[in-house]
Amino acid sequence: MRIVVTNCNTTQEMTEEIVRGARAAAGPGTTVAGLTPAWGPESAEGWLDSYLSAAAVIDTLRTYDGPPYDAVVMAGFGEHGREGVRELVDVPVVDITEAAAHLACLLGRRYGVVTTLERSRGQIEDSLETAGVGRNCAAVVGTGLSVLDLGDDERTEAAFLAAAERACAAGAEVLVLGCAGMTGLQRAVGEKLGLPVVDGVSAAVRLAESLVALGLTTSRAGSYARPLPKRRVWGGGPAG
Amino acid sequence: MRIVVTNCNTTQEMTEEIVRGARAAAGPGTTVAGLTPAWGPESAEGWLDSYLSAAAVIDTLRTYDGPPYDAVVMAGFGEHGREGVRELVDVPVVDITEAAAHLACLLGRRYGVVTTLERSRGQIEDSLETAGVGRNCAAVVGTGLSVLDLGDDERTEAAFLAAAERACAAGAEVLVLGCAGMTGLQRAVGEKLGLPVVDGVSAAVRLAESLVALGLTTSRAGSYARPLPKRRVWGGGPAG
Amino acid sequence: MRIVVTNCNTTQEMTEEIVRGARAAAGPGTTVAGLTPAWGPESAEGWLDSYLSAAAVIDTLRTYDGPPYDAVVMAGFGEHGREGVRELVDVPVVDITEAAAHLACLLGRRYGVVTTLERSRGQIEDSLETAGVGRNCAAVVGTGLSVLDLGDDERTEAAFLAAAERACAAGAEVLVLGCAGMTGLQRAVGEKLGLPVVDGVSAAVRLAESLVALGLTTSRAGSYARPLPKRRVWGGGPAG
Amino acid sequence: MRIVVTNCNTTQEMTEEIVRGARAAAGPGTTVAGLTPAWGPESAEGWLDSYLSAAAVIDTLRTYDGPPYDAVVMAGFGEHGREGVRELVDVPVVDITEAAAHLACLLGRRYGVVTTLERSRGQIEDSLETAGVGRNCAAVVGTGLSVLDLGDDERTEAAFLAAAERACAAGAEVLVLGCAGMTGLQRAVGEKLGLPVVDGVSAAVRLAESLVALGLTTSRAGSYARPLPKRRVWGGGPAG
Amino acid sequence: MRIVVTNCNTTQEMTEEIVRGARAAAGPGTTVAGLTPAWGPESAEGWLDSYLSAAAVIDTLRTYDGPPYDAVVMAGFGEHGREGVRELVDVPVVDITEAAAHLACLLGRRYGVVTTLERSRGQIEDSLETAGVGRNCAAVVGTGLSVLDLGDDERTEAAFLAAAERACAAGAEVLVLGCAGMTGLQRAVGEKLGLPVVDGVSAAVRLAESLVALGLTTSRAGSYARPLPKRRVWGGGPAG
Amino acid sequence: MRIVVTNCNTTQEMTEEIVRGARAAAGPGTTVAGLTPAWGPESAEGWLDSYLSAAAVIDTLRTYDGPPYDAVVMAGFGEHGREGVRELVDVPVVDITEAAAHLACLLGRRYGVVTTLERSRGQIEDSLETAGVGRNCAAVVGTGLSVLDLGDDERTEAAFLAAAERACAAGAEVLVLGCAGMTGLQRAVGEKLGLPVVDGVSAAVRLAESLVALGLTTSRAGSYARPLPKRRVWGGGPAG
Repeated sequence: MRIVVTNCNTTQEMTEEIVRGARAAAGPGTTVAGLTPAWGPESAEGWLDSYLSAAAVIDTLRTYDGPPYDAVVMAGFGEHGREGVRELVDVPVVDITEAAAHLACLLGRRYGVVTTLERSRGQIEDSLETAGVGRNCAAVVGTGLSVLDLGDDERTEAAFLAAAERACAAGAEVLVLGCAGMTGLQRAVGEKLGLPVVDGVSAAVRLAESLVALGLTTSRAGSYARPLPKRRVWGGGPAG
Repeated sequence: MRIVVTNCNTTQEMTEEIVRGARAAAGPGTTVAGLTPAWGPESAEGWLDSYLSAAAVIDTLRTYDGPPYDAVVMAGFGEHGREGVRELVDVPVVDITEAAAHLACLLGRRYGVVTTLERSRGQIEDSLETAGVGRNCAAVVGTGLSVLDLGDDERTEAAFLAAAERACAAGAEVLVLGCAGMTGLQRAVGEKLGLPVVDGVSAAVRLAESLVALGLTTSRAGSYARPLPKRRVWGGGPAG
Repeated sequence: MRIVVTNCNTTQEMTEEIVRGARAAAGPGTTVAGLTPAWGPESAEGWLDSYLSAAAVIDTLRTYDGPPYDAVVMAGFGEHGREGVRELVDVPVVDITEAAAHLACLLGRRYGVVTTLERSRGQIEDSLETAGVGRNCAAVVGTGLSVLDLGDDERTEAAFLAAAERACAAGAEVLVLGCAGMTGLQRAVGEKLGLPVVDGVSAAVRLAESLVALGLTTSRAGSYARPLPKRRVWGGGPAG
Repeated sequence: MRIVVTNCNTTQEMTEEIVRGARAAAGPGTTVAGLTPAWGPESAEGWLDSYLSAAAVIDTLRTYDGPPYDAVVMAGFGEHGREGVRELVDVPVVDITEAAAHLACLLGRRYGVVTTLERSRGQIEDSLETAGVGRNCAAVVGTGLSVLDLGDDERTEAAFLAAAERACAAGAEVLVLGCAGMTGLQRAVGEKLGLPVVDGVSAAVRLAESLVALGLTTSRAGSYARPLPKRRVWGGGPAG
Repeated sequence: MRIVVTNCNTTQEMTEEIVRGARAAAGPGTTVAGLTPAWGPESAEGWLDSYLSAAAVIDTLRTYDGPPYDAVVMAGFGEHGREGVRELVDVPVVDITEAAAHLACLLGRRYGVVTTLERSRGQIEDSLETAGVGRNCAAVVGTGLSVLDLGDDERTEAAFLAAAERACAAGAEVLVLGCAGMTGLQRAVGEKLGLPVVDGVSAAVRLAESLVALGLTTSRAGSYARPLPKRRVWGGGPAG
Repeated sequence: MRIVVTNCNTTQEMTEEIVRGARAAAGPGTTVAGLTPAWGPESAEGWLDSYLSAAAVIDTLRTYDGPPYDAVVMAGFGEHGREGVRELVDVPVVDITEAAAHLACLLGRRYGVVTTLERSRGQIEDSLETAGVGRNCAAVVGTGLSVLDLGDDERTEAAFLAAAERACAAGAEVLVLGCAGMTGLQRAVGEKLGLPVVDGVSAAVRLAESLVALGLTTSRAGSYARPLPKRRVWGGGPAG
């Protein structure tokens, strides 16, 4: 089985890191290919970035001409676009935000999300709510680190642990890594916290594999019907 | 006061129609200027279109170099993007979806939305919910007409009346025109139905004027902080 | 256009202050007339006062015989009565509680209300909820000041700022003045807080103007049908 | 134990009927006294009536100078005022709307309310919601009969059965008589429907007795603190 | 009238204590009989205990062959089983969890539950939610004491007061004893707190009496139809 | 990896059928073993059966002395017990009710459940709600068939299709088989309906495999702490 993982930003190194995480999570027969949008933001932090990212990721899949794939994993935590990709492709689409929440719900009565900047909280809350898994989310808390700050592992871990404490105080019994760039951190912080910590990329890969294995894909009835044929122009602006 | 109204699609005629509606609704000292994105879908119907539209509208405002304006009205019913525009500009931003709902809440205990295709229902419901005005929405119902079908006034009106009946059966006491392209229809159908019918474009213009007059604009604390400076590429794909 | 603003209590000075606030907010062609109920409480603080106030305000409008008016603004934050007035009059009715919330929703993802006594919180929460705009309310907090204490501007401002901090800690990105008697405070505290602060009286005046300008008024279908003709006696008790 | 039952309207015959129902429901040592407001509407149908009724009922209790009582039952289904009475008196206060719902929740997973006019639906829904028992309400349906029409028992019963069918189709497993004037009907319709039917007056009497017997009364902490001493005028208008 | 009170565990002393509480709360003509399950956990603390308890209590009533009874009170705070007992018996069934909440809702706008171990919070929250009375619950807080620790009255009272403070900070205006083993504590802590404190056993006894007196019992339509006749084996395992 | 699948009833044939379904869904290296409780109901239909089943399934796992296993799948749609099993075992536990809903949420905006008897609706709704995935459930509808009726494939399929139509009318875009005994039906009805149909057993097997592969298991913090050591007796009653 071949899974395409789309980064939500244009930073190639982050795609590679995500792909490493995805491969570590994937089952034996699964091939993972990363896609980096040719346009969009270099990191997605806030609503403007998120909408730009959504269009860029959709365009990346629309113009993709590589080997066929069996599922799409969208690796932007709290970022927009999943419903549009569901309209576009005929294979299952799993967004890492919802994926992490789905698995977290199976591991405890309430889960918490630890993300980068506080400003992302709103997007994540809305994303969980519309995905149908917001009810058992006890809190979304920020570490104060930006996406591109995550490179410093020690600082990231310390910030994560501090934020996790606040999530637990709000009732979280399970934690979720709230940024694709945190992939890989789950084991270290999980041990220190004595709690299960869910990585969205890993969760999404496993859920995508599950859907493919069960022969399930997006319903075309109602919300996610195929896009109507019409004239569309996909960007054209200069770098901003 | 000068209000910029952004069409959510690339169809110039629709921008003009929306601007006509906006001008009819605007107060004495208000100038209305329409903006048609240089890229995006020719009409927005579904999630893929909506995300493409969101990025295109944001880009249109980002690269705008006309005279200064006091507020933005976003004329895409149920379309994405409003939070991104709130981050981008320093003036008030009002989306026609939420605007119509805000006024409708003042006119009856439950309102209903009559839109184009059934497939738009999900986007509209989510948009109302996250805007904080979903509670009193009794139903979102489709007419079965596509955006570009709305030109035939007689057919549109008949379809609207039929759909309105279903919304009323679900408890609606006020109706909302669920598409920017329906602007102008409110009076005719309102009289036939004996109910107030709210047009989102008109509502948004008046709300934008109100915010400007009261010296209010988007909070920069938390969700809608200014976009972080970083490298962003705004599209580049060919027509699809 | 002529707007009647009803004070929720019998204190004439407060009516005058509210009318000043309303006039400052009104558009060029708008005349504002204040109405002070001939009966009711001298200030509304708590449920008993609120129900007494509701009946008195309705009676004031029922027996009004001045020049015709185009809209009613009800200036009692969190007080009851708006639905009854909607049944009674044929013009739009806007309550300052809901009005402030409607505008606040356009300015940030979550808003907070700063009111007088803690005991008012319940009424305000219920009023926002049934108006359909409770979802994005992060908190209603009290300053500990009674309505008639608000005369001391300095103390009021200090108490407001302290309470605002608690609302922001709960997630508020926009604040609402939770008492008609606070009208005028919005600019001073807004600047100190660096946040938009919405005054309900101003908001309601602008919303009322908007509805009138758009030719919209209360739906008579369902909830707000005209009162049935019957025998009603409007009070008669001595001062208590 | 002595329970005072307040009618929500000025119709003495209805008070008597309610008192008959209350006495039939009361335990051995309980005395029931009916109070008819000296002012207010002759029947409460709609929001205007409801707010007028709330003030009149509060005033009736405020000026009451009969023998002491141990609890108040407020017999206006869906009518306002209960929180104000809770502030006023030191004994337990039970409103028939909430009372019926509390018992109905114990008898089935979802209950339905059958009331008089459809226009009352909103008030009843809001009353149940704020009382904290709205979740398991499957539907509030109207019979189309006005309060003063209820005298014709046969017609009332037929209308009730027809409306009950709609409530059951919406999921109701238990029914509630949605008007104090229906008191006494429960047995006849319950047998025909094969379902438990809860009368609010009876339920409220039993709940009031329970609270008194257990030595429980309204909390003074927070919402229902005693009314502040101040100048209040209780009406004065002529009949309307 | 004869009420059977089922303990949720096998500890005979606790049954006796509960029965004492029930008798103290019961009306004049009511006889209370306690039932101790012959199997199940010696105390119910956590989900595993709760499900074991549910089956054991149902079995106890299924195999009961004493004198007939008029109602069942289930004395396990937050424990499962009430819906199953409703299917089994033809008389009213009242669970102390929901009973306490029903009365608490009548005494203040928000109530709080003070229970034993923090781990019980989830069960109690779910139990209140599905009973339809979760909305006005401000908080469920633990004292840190286990069920069998409650014997030390002084320690229990001190722990209760400390936990109550947290519940009040979260908005509770009324408190609920969150364990059947706390029965009797309500008066002492209520006086110290100056708040009404509801004991679930007392509340359930009074509610059961009320339903019996009004001739009401569980609906057989829908959820609580009689169990289908079939082969069932009620346990058989050794002590664990 | 070895997964234990627990049937919720004592019918060995049903365990075998479920195991067949589970094996068909499992990944290459997975072994599936079925467990049939030695006691409990022969089929679970209603709350009484469900609680009996919960205790029996927990007891079955408690006394299990076969080879070690890596995860538990609980195959009772809408049946109780999952939280208790989470306390008991150290490996991941997935209930088929929640499992089906988790996957269904990834395939459409709203899903519907088609189950056996209407009486099961309440349990299923509560189970989805507390699992945190109730929000996007459009409807739970019954086929009118009992669990043991499902043997007749043709009748089952016809009844499923009829019920599915009602679920779709309520907004479902994806369907869920609402009974473990329907396992295997998904492909046939999915093709006829042109919709994805999720089988809970298959979904749970894949989710359990995913959790194991990712090294995730139930959190011990808070709700699902290990059962306290104490005396418990697991049944003892004769067949009923």
